[in-house]
Amino acid sequence: MRENMVRSIWARGDAVVNGWLSIPSSFSAEVMAHQGFDSLVIDMQHGLVDYQAAVTMLQAISTTPVVPLVRVPWNDPAHLMKVLDAGAYGVICPMINTRDQAEALVRACRYAPRGVRSFGPTRAHLYGGDDYAERANDEILVMPMIETVEALENLDEILATPGVDAAYVGPADLSLSMGKEPRVDHTDPQLVEVQRTIVAACQRHGVVAAIHAGTAEYALKMIEDGYRLVTVGSDSHLLALGAAARVAAVRTGLPGVRSQVGD
Amino acid sequence: MRENMVRSIWARGDAVVNGWLSIPSSFSAEVMAHQGFDSLVIDMQHGLVDYQAAVTMLQAISTTPVVPLVRVPWNDPAHLMKVLDAGAYGVICPMINTRDQAEALVRACRYAPRGVRSFGPTRAHLYGGDDYAERANDEILVMPMIETVEALENLDEILATPGVDAAYVGPADLSLSMGKEPRVDHTDPQLVEVQRTIVAACQRHGVVAAIHAGTAEYALKMIEDGYRLVTVGSDSHLLALGAAARVAAVRTGLPGVRSQVGD
Amino acid sequence: MRENMVRSIWARGDAVVNGWLSIPSSFSAEVMAHQGFDSLVIDMQHGLVDYQAAVTMLQAISTTPVVPLVRVPWNDPAHLMKVLDAGAYGVICPMINTRDQAEALVRACRYAPRGVRSFGPTRAHLYGGDDYAERANDEILVMPMIETVEALENLDEILATPGVDAAYVGPADLSLSMGKEPRVDHTDPQLVEVQRTIVAACQRHGVVAAIHAGTAEYALKMIEDGYRLVTVGSDSHLLALGAAARVAAVRTGLPGVRSQVGD
Amino acid sequence: MRENMVRSIWARGDAVVNGWLSIPSSFSAEVMAHQGFDSLVIDMQHGLVDYQAAVTMLQAISTTPVVPLVRVPWNDPAHLMKVLDAGAYGVICPMINTRDQAEALVRACRYAPRGVRSFGPTRAHLYGGDDYAERANDEILVMPMIETVEALENLDEILATPGVDAAYVGPADLSLSMGKEPRVDHTDPQLVEVQRTIVAACQRHGVVAAIHAGTAEYALKMIEDGYRLVTVGSDSHLLALGAAARVAAVRTGLPGVRSQVGD
Amino acid sequence: MRENMVRSIWARGDAVVNGWLSIPSSFSAEVMAHQGFDSLVIDMQHGLVDYQAAVTMLQAISTTPVVPLVRVPWNDPAHLMKVLDAGAYGVICPMINTRDQAEALVRACRYAPRGVRSFGPTRAHLYGGDDYAERANDEILVMPMIETVEALENLDEILATPGVDAAYVGPADLSLSMGKEPRVDHTDPQLVEVQRTIVAACQRHGVVAAIHAGTAEYALKMIEDGYRLVTVGSDSHLLALGAAARVAAVRTGLPGVRSQVGD
Amino acid sequence: MRENMVRSIWARGDAVVNGWLSIPSSFSAEVMAHQGFDSLVIDMQHGLVDYQAAVTMLQAISTTPVVPLVRVPWNDPAHLMKVLDAGAYGVICPMINTRDQAEALVRACRYAPRGVRSFGPTRAHLYGGDDYAERANDEILVMPMIETVEALENLDEILATPGVDAAYVGPADLSLSMGKEPRVDHTDPQLVEVQRTIVAACQRHGVVAAIHAGTAEYALKMIEDGYRLVTVGSDSHLLALGAAARVAAVRTGLPGVRSQVGD
Repeated sequence: MRENMVRSIWARGDAVVNGWLSIPSSFSAEVMAHQGFDSLVIDMQHGLVDYQAAVTMLQAISTTPVVPLVRVPWNDPAHLMKVLDAGAYGVICPMINTRDQAEALVRACRYAPRGVRSFGPTRAHLYGGDDYAERANDEILVMPMIETVEALENLDEILATPGVDAAYVGPADLSLSMGKEPRVDHTDPQLVEVQRTIVAACQRHGVVAAIHAGTAEYALKMIEDGYRLVTVGSDSHLLALGAAARVAAVRTGLPGVRSQVGD
Repeated sequence: MRENMVRSIWARGDAVVNGWLSIPSSFSAEVMAHQGFDSLVIDMQHGLVDYQAAVTMLQAISTTPVVPLVRVPWNDPAHLMKVLDAGAYGVICPMINTRDQAEALVRACRYAPRGVRSFGPTRAHLYGGDDYAERANDEILVMPMIETVEALENLDEILATPGVDAAYVGPADLSLSMGKEPRVDHTDPQLVEVQRTIVAACQRHGVVAAIHAGTAEYALKMIEDGYRLVTVGSDSHLLALGAAARVAAVRTGLPGVRSQVGD
Repeated sequence: MRENMVRSIWARGDAVVNGWLSIPSSFSAEVMAHQGFDSLVIDMQHGLVDYQAAVTMLQAISTTPVVPLVRVPWNDPAHLMKVLDAGAYGVICPMINTRDQAEALVRACRYAPRGVRSFGPTRAHLYGGDDYAERANDEILVMPMIETVEALENLDEILATPGVDAAYVGPADLSLSMGKEPRVDHTDPQLVEVQRTIVAACQRHGVVAAIHAGTAEYALKMIEDGYRLVTVGSDSHLLALGAAARVAAVRTGLPGVRSQVGD
Repeated sequence: MRENMVRSIWARGDAVVNGWLSIPSSFSAEVMAHQGFDSLVIDMQHGLVDYQAAVTMLQAISTTPVVPLVRVPWNDPAHLMKVLDAGAYGVICPMINTRDQAEALVRACRYAPRGVRSFGPTRAHLYGGDDYAERANDEILVMPMIETVEALENLDEILATPGVDAAYVGPADLSLSMGKEPRVDHTDPQLVEVQRTIVAACQRHGVVAAIHAGTAEYALKMIEDGYRLVTVGSDSHLLALGAAARVAAVRTGLPGVRSQVGD
Repeated sequence: MRENMVRSIWARGDAVVNGWLSIPSSFSAEVMAHQGFDSLVIDMQHGLVDYQAAVTMLQAISTTPVVPLVRVPWNDPAHLMKVLDAGAYGVICPMINTRDQAEALVRACRYAPRGVRSFGPTRAHLYGGDDYAERANDEILVMPMIETVEALENLDEILATPGVDAAYVGPADLSLSMGKEPRVDHTDPQLVEVQRTIVAACQRHGVVAAIHAGTAEYALKMIEDGYRLVTVGSDSHLLALGAAARVAAVRTGLPGVRSQVGD
Repeated sequence: MRENMVRSIWARGDAVVNGWLSIPSSFSAEVMAHQGFDSLVIDMQHGLVDYQAAVTMLQAISTTPVVPLVRVPWNDPAHLMKVLDAGAYGVICPMINTRDQAEALVRACRYAPRGVRSFGPTRAHLYGGDDYAERANDEILVMPMIETVEALENLDEILATPGVDAAYVGPADLSLSMGKEPRVDHTDPQLVEVQRTIVAACQRHGVVAAIHAGTAEYALKMIEDGYRLVTVGSDSHLLALGAAARVAAVRTGLPGVRSQVGD
């Protein structure tokens, strides 16, 4: 089976530089796959991406060595099994708040006897190789999201669930759940503390801590803090930032000239 | 009929800040339409975009006041009429090298008696309004590309073609045609001179000069030189630039850590 | 945040004239958005529409001031959150039969502390505006369907659920559930009575009553009876009706001429 | 080979009641195929339909006995051969103004020795049957559009072209070409006269006269005048008409209530 | 309502020869529909097929008399009702392990009073006919999959569930669940015994036994053993087998010539 | 630039084993790419494939070392340049009958000074590498089809056209053009002779001879005869053959059992 290079990077103690895909296009996915990320997550939750587009994006990523991952919209075996069969090498699952939910997540992603994943890796065996069936349970990544107060309360139980490989922190939902504004790159001391608590818990349970970051600076800070998979940018956000900056640079140079079309 | 704001900007003597769309996605098109461009060109020539995707991108742009334009793949009535019927407010047409080609281009874009555009503005009348039939000939923009030595030789004849609104310079093809490397943002004196010649010819014929630029700086320089529609960035290029820069910023901060997956 | 004009119409005591979309096409959606409806519901339950098509239809509606709504296929956070993130300004959810189901529905559509909607309004903030996060809980509409005997038994509990904005009556399922034929525009006294009971209950709870109608006459009758959002036609039904009537009018005028292809 | 029932209807001297498809959806196509038309034309010229959507629409029509036809965007072998290979049982081709153009059209649609159609009826043999190769030249319909003054001048030459089965009048382009407003259902005496002239010429050459009509009344009038294939309605137009009428009927019944969203 | 010919074949005591569709294409589905299968299952679980593609595949199958069936990804009313509304004449549902799950499955597929299927057979009534509403409960097939040890333990209870028409054995999941390698065409005595036990139980309960087979030989063996719906091949598997055999036959005949691109 | 392995195989004197793709699906394309072919041709002429599907198929092939080629629908710069920009490593162009047509074909595929290909290898540089611009003229394959009597008459002129890499024989069109039935794998002495003549001419001009074959046996025969790129199977044909054989094998084993659905 093709090696899961996210595991290899973790095995040597390094951090994974991850990118995020919200645009439902195999071309933008292929462009992103050439920019130096270690892995790319196709976001089927908040991204504008449904299954049929995701399949072509998985193929686009597979034209490169970048590791293809998927965030599913919900902890539902239909979603989880379908993206794994399509060749995702790992899943991120939102809103895992209890041990039961974590166990259900793992079961859906592992073949018996470790779980109840139904057998039929239709595209996965093309991508992964002929021994996919035997090795998938060891290679595929299962990453519950920790993003609510309830999840924090059940953190140890969730992280102790056999088969959980990493805990992916959703900073915006976490702050929303704590009664604060939804944002990323927290400097609020309470949230900074929570983010550190999660790393510590992960380390206690031999689980990788992962997180979303909005800037390179914050991403580096998170790596320093012990996170070992950090999402450093998403396609639609980088596109908007780049385009707005370019337009601004031109308009700034054109004193007295305003757009007719406004915003 | 909905006003063509590119004409309005030109009417007050200002330059149009244009963006470029190569990703076949209505979502990335909508993201781009919110970044401050005056107009956006859906590139059906070198972009990865075919007609059915282009329709949804035209709709996405139409959720904003940004002016929707299309570069067709070739000077072919089938392409030209179809994108106009779908609501494009102007077309850029590659490789117009002779007066005959320019006349054919204009004829395909204008209703009789000015041309031979077939009548059936199926989506265009939804976007443009009920009087589309009467006013389309005056609002829709026709922009041949000047991008070969042959076109330069026939420049005055092309620009004098009634119905030509602007001449869009393709810098990469122009340099290629002149025996140089295909690139944009020319500093080569011969090409700089050619680009100036084109502006002068345009001014002589009452036609707008338009051009592609690879940076804000060059775009400003072109506006100074008299260009009044300047493409200042394309979606796939801005995405690649932004993502590569973000990854580099993170990797630079991680001494001793290399990606497993390489490039 | 862009105002939800369905709420504005209700605020002045008027009824909303709603249309229905079953055809998975952004073009037919845009055609419908130009015919005078106040709002349009993309039907992801019985319509032939899946998420990726729905996104382009939301964009098509967004080229006009018509309010974009979605009927989800089921009371599932994955569906609900995904269409809200894509810019739906309200959801209709089938088969809400109990208070628990109504609460789950509301929770999935509201950010904390009012619910558990996950944060990531990827397209919604483009459509709604920069303050979407702060105001979405107040603007987005949550409309459970009342369409079973069980729902009638739990009607007061369902309508009293905080966050329920309207109750949408599904006449066909309601009659089926009551042991009658599935149809709309009921004249059966028992169903007429039930439909009135629902209006009265809605008024008691400060909730809007909404319903499907098959003709303009019945729609007006429903408005008289107190319904304040009435679906007055669906794309596929109006298309079939219009086409069949046109064909019949021609064939009637052609005595002795029968179609070869029959039906 | 499956019989082309348009030919059968013509053989008994009857008129074909034709419908028109501008919405790129296999579902709306299937709905239309159940409303009693003899044939349906997928409009790839002014419709919002490209090849890949057209294939699914051809399949949708093929679930019924309705005859599947296509209007291509232009007289180009690439378009013509591709839709025939996909199973179209006839083509309408816009803007045939000269004998040369008519001959090129026929050649692209007929296998040698009658033409130069390339062999590869990939879907057509599934739909048409195993003897498609032998019989296609006799079953497939070739219908040039007569819609310009130039075509009128060359009418006899065009109609005399071997292999031309019908002449399809495009009323809007015809009036535009004659210096009048683009519309259908002409009452202008000059256009009425032209339309009659075309029928007479068709009869002289043993070719069927065909035309677009905007109402049942005009369609019947055209049949009386000798047209034997009449397009009596298009999907997007019937949808818009039906929806607008429905909304108007409701709004008329609601005095004092105006839509918030306007048009 | 169009007769469900799978029921007719069973009624005369014969076995149904079923095909399987994993490729998300209406063209490959139509090709398969012409090869002599009685029925075709669109696999939305392990196939690469999502709802929007499945609709076009249902249409493609509907161009022939082959019976269109769907395997849903999970026992979820959203999936089940949506494919039935799109015209599936039966569903296969994975992982039915308990009586409760079987009852939920049946309820989702039957209108009241036999179930809770929501009313809106949008495409189904086009395909099935005008009396679809009255007869669907009797024609549509409900086929739970028996594929785990837990299901075997609850076999009689599952098969006794009113409304279950057939039990579809998933051999690969069954062997996996029993601690063996996931494969089809079992010769392992324990699995052979289980497969026979299921037939016997089906016969006891008046339910049809159905199963997947990997070769014609095994399919025939299963029919001999009492299975009366046997899947004899899937599109992607047959394609891979056929292509690999063809390539091998050529390469074998080319001694000393090896592919440059390897595998 | 990524090496064009078709050229490498030719360079060592071996024959290329080519496959053919008519199904518009990136999944079936990926399945085919794993079966041992050296190259795969996406057939945009007679295949059911349009540009947008072709892009995802090019990506699917690019997940393997198989060389991605495209047959365009016609000798039109719009088609040729668009598929090259999308990453095709060579094109096959139908119906090249004269030296002029051959020259136009080559010009559209080569950058100046060898041709007039417009510059913008949007996906091609991702697939091919950063030096695509410099090396594309030497790597990309141009393969006119020889498939008419006219082409045979002009054979030497066509093959002598600088930039022609191979001549691809279309056996079915060739026989049709010669007044015979359209088929492949010719045994008719006249056609056998013509096919040999073409090889001899190719060898004279230093051009590779290529051809379509319907069986492995004929493919081997062609290789013996000097053809060095042989298409040995197409997806839709292999699928149909495999499925029909499987069904037949089952039905043969079921005496007295006939399908209800017939053909």
